[in-house]
Amino acid sequence: MIDEIGQRAKDASHSLRESTGHVRQTALEAMSSAVLHGEDEILSANEADMDLASAEGITGALLDRLRLTPDRVAAMSRGLATVASLPDPVGRETGGWSLYNGAQLHRVRVPLGVIAVIYEARPNVTSDAAGLCIKSGNAVILRGSSYALGSNTAIAGTLRDALGRSGLPEDGVQLLQDTGREGAKALMQATNWVDLLVPRGGPGLVDAVRREATVPTVIDGAGNCHVYVDSSADLDKAMRIVLNAKVQRPGVCNAAEKLLVHRDVAAGFLPDVIDALRGEGVEVRGDAATAEIVDDVIPAVPDDWSTEYLDLVIAIAVVPDVEAAVTHVRMHGTGHTEVIVTEDRSAANRFVVGVDSGVVGVNVSTRFTDGEQFGFGAEIGNSTQKLHVRGPMGLESLTSERYVLYGDGQVR
Amino acid sequence: MIDEIGQRAKDASHSLRESTGHVRQTALEAMSSAVLHGEDEILSANEADMDLASAEGITGALLDRLRLTPDRVAAMSRGLATVASLPDPVGRETGGWSLYNGAQLHRVRVPLGVIAVIYEARPNVTSDAAGLCIKSGNAVILRGSSYALGSNTAIAGTLRDALGRSGLPEDGVQLLQDTGREGAKALMQATNWVDLLVPRGGPGLVDAVRREATVPTVIDGAGNCHVYVDSSADLDKAMRIVLNAKVQRPGVCNAAEKLLVHRDVAAGFLPDVIDALRGEGVEVRGDAATAEIVDDVIPAVPDDWSTEYLDLVIAIAVVPDVEAAVTHVRMHGTGHTEVIVTEDRSAANRFVVGVDSGVVGVNVSTRFTDGEQFGFGAEIGNSTQKLHVRGPMGLESLTSERYVLYGDGQVR
Repeated sequence: MIDEIGQRAKDASHSLRESTGHVRQTALEAMSSAVLHGEDEILSANEADMDLASAEGITGALLDRLRLTPDRVAAMSRGLATVASLPDPVGRETGGWSLYNGAQLHRVRVPLGVIAVIYEARPNVTSDAAGLCIKSGNAVILRGSSYALGSNTAIAGTLRDALGRSGLPEDGVQLLQDTGREGAKALMQATNWVDLLVPRGGPGLVDAVRREATVPTVIDGAGNCHVYVDSSADLDKAMRIVLNAKVQRPGVCNAAEKLLVHRDVAAGFLPDVIDALRGEGVEVRGDAATAEIVDDVIPAVPDDWSTEYLDLVIAIAVVPDVEAAVTHVRMHGTGHTEVIVTEDRSAANRFVVGVDSGVVGVNVSTRFTDGEQFGFGAEIGNSTQKLHVRGPMGLESLTSERYVLYGDGQVR
Repeated sequence: MIDEIGQRAKDASHSLRESTGHVRQTALEAMSSAVLHGEDEILSANEADMDLASAEGITGALLDRLRLTPDRVAAMSRGLATVASLPDPVGRETGGWSLYNGAQLHRVRVPLGVIAVIYEARPNVTSDAAGLCIKSGNAVILRGSSYALGSNTAIAGTLRDALGRSGLPEDGVQLLQDTGREGAKALMQATNWVDLLVPRGGPGLVDAVRREATVPTVIDGAGNCHVYVDSSADLDKAMRIVLNAKVQRPGVCNAAEKLLVHRDVAAGFLPDVIDALRGEGVEVRGDAATAEIVDDVIPAVPDDWSTEYLDLVIAIAVVPDVEAAVTHVRMHGTGHTEVIVTEDRSAANRFVVGVDSGVVGVNVSTRFTDGEQFGFGAEIGNSTQKLHVRGPMGLESLTSERYVLYGDGQVR
């Protein structure tokens, strides 16, 4: 079965690679309209998914992520329209030079081919991923959660129709109906067909991909994000940033999980910030130095420093200087996003150079690590590995570069 | 053991990432001189390796690749000097824009971190790989063949000394002494330490990497390279290119393995080219149409079309047009290098667009797919996967891009 789907995706990828940017832009606009026109069908499929999920005991944040509303459908449509309007990354010449023998070498940006995405019960990923892949000239094979199968089928069907009407192959977007483990495994090992697999999910999925995948992958991994408040920090900014980074949306990967505070400002800053965090319902854990300054801090155990809580919990450590903050991040960070709050340019530089994360911020919230915030229209994932692309993955992350060499009979 | 080596590599990678391009250039120059000064030691270690390999029955091309001579040591030194002089890819800003909230986003080229290379008994890879990695700010863990262990140890020792004298950590270059399967497997699964693994070897190694590796990899895979001679080809150029691509060095991945000929020129071209190939000792296999034109052509079986011979063998097919050549390559090619010989611009364009290989050539030999030929000084491998980098892998292929976001207290 995966071979049939793979062959169809590969065939579609050739047509997409050869299509013009104009045709792909028009197709994205058609996909954007189609989602709006298909709203009733999509919402009723989603309602059925929600009923089934509720019956199986899904609640809270998980159920909320599954839910579609007219607003959320409109947001999906807007996302596709934004991606439609972005510059086309494909076909751009990114380098070119003459060889010693006069042959002309051109380096050209090209689509990867067939992208596979494995994701959780978030139906909007279906249209985000499809839009980014088609715009960048790739075919996509989507493998969502069983809970969202009805919603995803409705959305993918709508997008496929729009593709076909635009003169592009419908099989540019395919939804894997097998939502079991075997379906995922087959996709992870489809080396004949899949050029890039992006797993979007928790540690279980990431571990399975590391263990099972034989196709190239970019890992969308954990975000154990740090905010470091330097001795030179503007403490008002620090307060605003820590609160926003921790509580604005605690369940996502770019939320802050750890706070490091320079010892010179610890006594002045920690009582206020811990008070404010607790006021937002955050459970505060800390090292011995933190507990000396503020009452009722839960002692942090070693595991705390490497844990991504994805919840209203934070662990705080007092550090002697920026160097110690860098060392702490190197030991415990996941390479996602780290932020320094400082008014001292040399401290900022030291942090930026010393910390090797996909996104490093100075005086900003960690919450900006996001394709939409970066201006990519949407994101297909957030890379925490270093190969090929780091941080939010937009259109360019779905392309590579190849060489074309023009000669006049040159041999070696 | 891998954890000790990995930790040392990771520590070294931080120093290398923070080093200036000037220091790394100086280190490369020191490495280049050191190889020359260490020539006696390197050659005598190599002699011992050669004796041992001969005693174990290694002969022919394999033994020749293991052999070092004063000329080959000088070439290693020259390679390091060339890489030293190349522009520094690290630290370059490759993009930058303001977010809607005024925060300034910078995209900056950075080293990957720790590179692992698994390779066969070719001691020159030790210095090529080390040079490219250090110049691009990465630490490298080298795992060569047991046959070359003495030579590799001598070369790596020389390079480590030079690194230390240049103020960079010696552990920027480490040679894995465990040359068994377990050593390779440990390296393939060192997810805590290795940011990129490049396997350079035959199908056995590539399969093992696909199966076992949990670290990010770029596959240096097979080259089932095609030359297509179009109806509009200049047949003198075609003759020169086919001969060079097939016989100049048949054992390497960028040698041609297949010849496709447009039917309109088959009767005029095939007798001459097959005669010339046979004169160079090439065994000629072919499809029915080829056998009708030339006597004693060995009938090609289906497997021939997907086989990388790495030997003086070629398989020839007659095709009705450029479209059929594109389809043939899509079915059987490995994405390495394909060449069209044509004087017709539209045929060239059709081939270039239709064939999705890392390198596509027009009127040139396939043999140019090579880091040195492309001007990269050396290559750490030749990617036949599409993720992140395709074709010859030079300095830039050992870097990625990350984001730095400067703000003034922005929150969401």
